[in-house]
Amino acid sequence: MKKVLIANRGEIAVRIIRACKEMDIATVAVYSEADKEALHVELADEAYCIGPKASKDSYLNFSNIISVAKLTNCDGIHPGYGFLAENASFAELCEACDIMFIGPTSEAISKMGTKDVARETMRLAGVPVVPGSTGIVGSEKEGLEIAEELGFPVIIKATAGGGGKGIRVARNREDFITGLRMTQKEAAAAFGNPGVYIEKFIEDFRHVEIQVMADSHGNAIHLGERDCSIQRRMQKLVEEAPSPALSPELRAEMGEAAVKAALAVNYRGAGTVEFIFDAVNQKFYFMEMNTRIQVEHPVTEMITGIDLIQQQLKVASGETLAYTQEDVTFKGWAIECRINAENPAKNFMPSAGKVSMYLAPGGLGVRVDSAMYPGYTIPPYYDSMVAKLITFADTREEAIAKMKRALSEFAIEGVHTTIPFHLKLMDHEVFKSGDFNTKFLEKYDVLES
Amino acid sequence: MKKVLIANRGEIAVRIIRACKEMDIATVAVYSEADKEALHVELADEAYCIGPKASKDSYLNFSNIISVAKLTNCDGIHPGYGFLAENASFAELCEACDIMFIGPTSEAISKMGTKDVARETMRLAGVPVVPGSTGIVGSEKEGLEIAEELGFPVIIKATAGGGGKGIRVARNREDFITGLRMTQKEAAAAFGNPGVYIEKFIEDFRHVEIQVMADSHGNAIHLGERDCSIQRRMQKLVEEAPSPALSPELRAEMGEAAVKAALAVNYRGAGTVEFIFDAVNQKFYFMEMNTRIQVEHPVTEMITGIDLIQQQLKVASGETLAYTQEDVTFKGWAIECRINAENPAKNFMPSAGKVSMYLAPGGLGVRVDSAMYPGYTIPPYYDSMVAKLITFADTREEAIAKMKRALSEFAIEGVHTTIPFHLKLMDHEVFKSGDFNTKFLEKYDVLES
Repeated sequence: MKKVLIANRGEIAVRIIRACKEMDIATVAVYSEADKEALHVELADEAYCIGPKASKDSYLNFSNIISVAKLTNCDGIHPGYGFLAENASFAELCEACDIMFIGPTSEAISKMGTKDVARETMRLAGVPVVPGSTGIVGSEKEGLEIAEELGFPVIIKATAGGGGKGIRVARNREDFITGLRMTQKEAAAAFGNPGVYIEKFIEDFRHVEIQVMADSHGNAIHLGERDCSIQRRMQKLVEEAPSPALSPELRAEMGEAAVKAALAVNYRGAGTVEFIFDAVNQKFYFMEMNTRIQVEHPVTEMITGIDLIQQQLKVASGETLAYTQEDVTFKGWAIECRINAENPAKNFMPSAGKVSMYLAPGGLGVRVDSAMYPGYTIPPYYDSMVAKLITFADTREEAIAKMKRALSEFAIEGVHTTIPFHLKLMDHEVFKSGDFNTKFLEKYDVLES
Repeated sequence: MKKVLIANRGEIAVRIIRACKEMDIATVAVYSEADKEALHVELADEAYCIGPKASKDSYLNFSNIISVAKLTNCDGIHPGYGFLAENASFAELCEACDIMFIGPTSEAISKMGTKDVARETMRLAGVPVVPGSTGIVGSEKEGLEIAEELGFPVIIKATAGGGGKGIRVARNREDFITGLRMTQKEAAAAFGNPGVYIEKFIEDFRHVEIQVMADSHGNAIHLGERDCSIQRRMQKLVEEAPSPALSPELRAEMGEAAVKAALAVNYRGAGTVEFIFDAVNQKFYFMEMNTRIQVEHPVTEMITGIDLIQQQLKVASGETLAYTQEDVTFKGWAIECRINAENPAKNFMPSAGKVSMYLAPGGLGVRVDSAMYPGYTIPPYYDSMVAKLITFADTREEAIAKMKRALSEFAIEGVHTTIPFHLKLMDHEVFKSGDFNTKFLEKYDVLES
């Protein structure tokens, strides 16, 4: 791999450019008209505008991206996360154009992206799944029968959804009938596929996920778990590795299940198997597999010392995995806070605009992944996450203390950010105890604490 | 320890404030009139002006500093490096005022600060020293006799010098006579003490130093070596850990010698035993001991995972060392580039002024210790080092690749910096080979390479 096009923007584009530079791989950035002044454009070796501000016309524009890749003689395209990262058609187009899609095969993306197929594939591979329907629900009547057999509450999920989108909980028959119709309707509109399936709803669970890495020679390993239970409306806000809730035995078991999942779809590259972890009953169930690098990958990098983006590039080049399962060891504790340009005091309302002052924290055990700079204007058209602040220390307590210190010196002026929220969270007794689940933010008003 | 005064400025003051915050210790900053807008003033809990811009009136002003510490009820004073860090009289004054000087006792500072006494103490403790005079040279005649017995070249060193200051090489009798007089004269002027001693001059050596840490209960350990052979006029520019030249056996031997050195003076806190390492003959000799935290301490922190400033604070509080020698393990490779506000193309001429743009590099394995911010004005009155850029990876090759990447994205506008020099250095074949000594920069014109 000599030259890579990065089909993304923001911090992940910068992250990928950094990895390429360190491996002496030339980089080609692409950008929308709204991103002319973006840092990834500045840092890449070459940069090309691929369309107007709307994602569908630029970062999702298949033909423009492929054209740039072809014209600049790129060997590969790294999709980052979001945008085209889990688009099987795009991966297929890359394959057809003889450009390496830095990720799994289009077939693996497709299998895991169709959530009911993924569920069935996992069940057959021996990965624990939540009790539920086999495949798509055919009719309201069939759905209702399954729901009553499972017992309420149940959860209705769009097969084309994922990442917390296209799901709805039903607590009784009435809920279910309305919910089924609405989810189908929304799924048809949002994903172009109205298919839904049903699972028993587990009320209180932690979101625990396993990072996997596989090569194209049939090798797969896991790199431990991340706990992403601090969520707001199913969007992750804080992630950590390891999980405060996992025993070494469960970690090994969950890790093995994730490797099984990867092998079941001939996986290649970095992926994440997300689990519902029922801490009370010490049971875990397959939730979904994200067939891409994830936002929260840095916490795994910190505790394993393995650069996941570099490994993606190596595996995409056809190299055999540089690590066996035995080579992977865990040291210390890492926490990541997603810094969003949002006003936490006003219901996390997005806050785009000019960053008049920008100074990231530094020093030992502090990592910042961001595409901001002093004077940068955050465009209102894309995701509001503008920085990831990661701290690393020997223990969870020390990593939290370091996070407080780092948050307190992070200077971002001109826009609102979620820094004040994270500062409150790091001081919250329940968060500090490590004993919480995904309902934490529903249950506690962190800003008022 | 509940409250600490930081008797310093710049990046080391910020570094110490960060460690204190993470340990929940309140901080008091002091500053000269030239440093009103400094970052350490902004980050500390309290800040007090202690005098005009000249160091002698502010950062070296014993009574003003002690007064602030007393008035603000500080338990301790952290001197950082430079300024009062190795001033035995100041340490003594702290002791008399019942304020913990965060460093060794005034007695240990004094013993190690008087270079001929240090040399003799080390010799008696069984630490290898370079052949030379026993104590101060009494007369020109005596000096000449010793020099001829040692054989030219010899090196004449001021007993009150250190850190590359107050030393001169003599290659023959004439050189020696002039050199002796000049060194004595300069030493009298600079340090108030004309005493000099003589050592055999070792032409080609690497500067390899050992980090030690000791508590007040008689425990001392070492934390491996740092190689600081890239020097310009005896000032370090780049440091790394481990040394590319040391075998595990020599590392252990040198480490043991350094622990012996520390124990010989009842050392407390963080200290560094500097050695002349003759790589050709695989021999090492005591050079001097720095009784303070050093600029280059981060590379040791990266490969050991131990926060040296936190350990200083703990040991100063009377705690027993948190680590035994067996607990200390080394992982990976760390390199530090000192970013100075100097113009390398104009003979490293200092370049003070306003930093119109500032954006530090980020991402995995990159650490920045700096007190700069966008819009900061670098005052011309103090040291020109304005940032330390540290990279960490599995291997030396990867740490260099990461350093190149990080240097290339480090944006500092408005002043000249040594970044272009470091970029050239990281690409230099001899530097990359790891096979060089302290004459590297005399021998190679890095900027022209």
